[in-house]
Amino acid sequence: MAAAIGKKHWVIPEGYIPPDDREKPRQFISHEAACILNTGDGDAHIQVTLYFGDRDPCGPYLVTVPARRTLHLRFNDLIDPRPVPVGTDYSSVLESDLPIVVQYTRLDSRRSDIALLSTIAFGSD
Amino acid sequence: MAAAIGKKHWVIPEGYIPPDDREKPRQFISHEAACILNTGDGDAHIQVTLYFGDRDPCGPYLVTVPARRTLHLRFNDLIDPRPVPVGTDYSSVLESDLPIVVQYTRLDSRRSDIALLSTIAFGSD
Amino acid sequence: MAAAIGKKHWVIPEGYIPPDDREKPRQFISHEAACILNTGDGDAHIQVTLYFGDRDPCGPYLVTVPARRTLHLRFNDLIDPRPVPVGTDYSSVLESDLPIVVQYTRLDSRRSDIALLSTIAFGSD
Amino acid sequence: MAAAIGKKHWVIPEGYIPPDDREKPRQFISHEAACILNTGDGDAHIQVTLYFGDRDPCGPYLVTVPARRTLHLRFNDLIDPRPVPVGTDYSSVLESDLPIVVQYTRLDSRRSDIALLSTIAFGSD
Repeated sequence: MAAAIGKKHWVIPEGYIPPDDREKPRQFISHEAACILNTGDGDAHIQVTLYFGDRDPCGPYLVTVPARRTLHLRFNDLIDPRPVPVGTDYSSVLESDLPIVVQYTRLDSRRSDIALLSTIAFGSD
Repeated sequence: MAAAIGKKHWVIPEGYIPPDDREKPRQFISHEAACILNTGDGDAHIQVTLYFGDRDPCGPYLVTVPARRTLHLRFNDLIDPRPVPVGTDYSSVLESDLPIVVQYTRLDSRRSDIALLSTIAFGSD
Repeated sequence: MAAAIGKKHWVIPEGYIPPDDREKPRQFISHEAACILNTGDGDAHIQVTLYFGDRDPCGPYLVTVPARRTLHLRFNDLIDPRPVPVGTDYSSVLESDLPIVVQYTRLDSRRSDIALLSTIAFGSD
Repeated sequence: MAAAIGKKHWVIPEGYIPPDDREKPRQFISHEAACILNTGDGDAHIQVTLYFGDRDPCGPYLVTVPARRTLHLRFNDLIDPRPVPVGTDYSSVLESDLPIVVQYTRLDSRRSDIALLSTIAFGSD
């Protein structure tokens, strides 16, 4: 089994949840996710901070990824301290107490078909 | 709050604004963006230079991202010293006086549905 | 000819095989792939481990990429020790005895058209 | 003006040119591109080698990117020593005598709409 791989700080400059019909099946509602992998033997405690164009940062949102688990965290599901506004440009920073690896993905289904984008986030120690 | 994260030079080799109907709603017009996050306590002053296949580079375009803010900069909106030509291959380089993180995204809606691509840009000190 | 380029550990935090009609032509069935390049003169022996949100990791899946060859490995085709569940969030880690480079791609064709995403995986020594 | 930024070796593990109707307008034919930026004062001379799953590597394909220029190189256009086969898994390695930055993009238009993917390639010195 691999030891803990990754970095403790991750940055995702993109961020935009397309306004969408919330009555669709969950897998087809437009959403954004930070996919977080913790390969280590300890639980990773993560603070997420959101940045905006016209107001102060919001956070921290507190997330735990257990040892040897993955979490595909939907930004749409973040509510405390405040829901992520839809149709609004933002960025996010994840700070973990243990090494993790983060990938960012958006599914846009405002039109009849699906569009996808994804990238490994920017990692920093 | 995180200190300034990132690098001062960022390169985006891809660049192509699909020719599109400019009467569409802004969020659906084909466009390209450099999403820029400044997590630091000072305003980041950025010079953007565009490179082409058949002519000299154009720039600098001057952009400021305030402290603890994000800017999703549309290349379609750059006009000084010259608008970015549509339907033309180009690349871009961003040089900042403070550390930033840059991600590049294109939305292509020439057909009835949307296509997306995105990647963290190439960072260098 | 280039010597062996790359790293020995690669992480892909995203992972989700869209449930799809398995009677479609192979190239149009929704799938995920790890594209693995071995530019070196020796065969690369790779162990793939899958991570989940709610259960222990599964693996290793054993894969060999011969010298100077590429393998576009479909996660859909992994069966030993266990098929990759569809419609389920997962992550993957690849550990190789020789340097390789890994890129992750998904093709989603649940709707009438195709959606694609791709990124170079996160490499670590 | 920025000095030469980048690395001399670049790897793109993904590679697959979707079989398509070659009578479409050029911008809508399914294709793959290596977008190459040379920010330096000298011309960059690049050797491209293609790797396959079931045969020896093919190359070098010789490409020059002039000083302070970008080249969006379509793999579909490579013909010497041999055209890139469509509908075939491959990978590519670019070796340059000067620093460059490389990004990989695919446009898939086999269906009625467009799908896009893109990532900065894996760079190495």
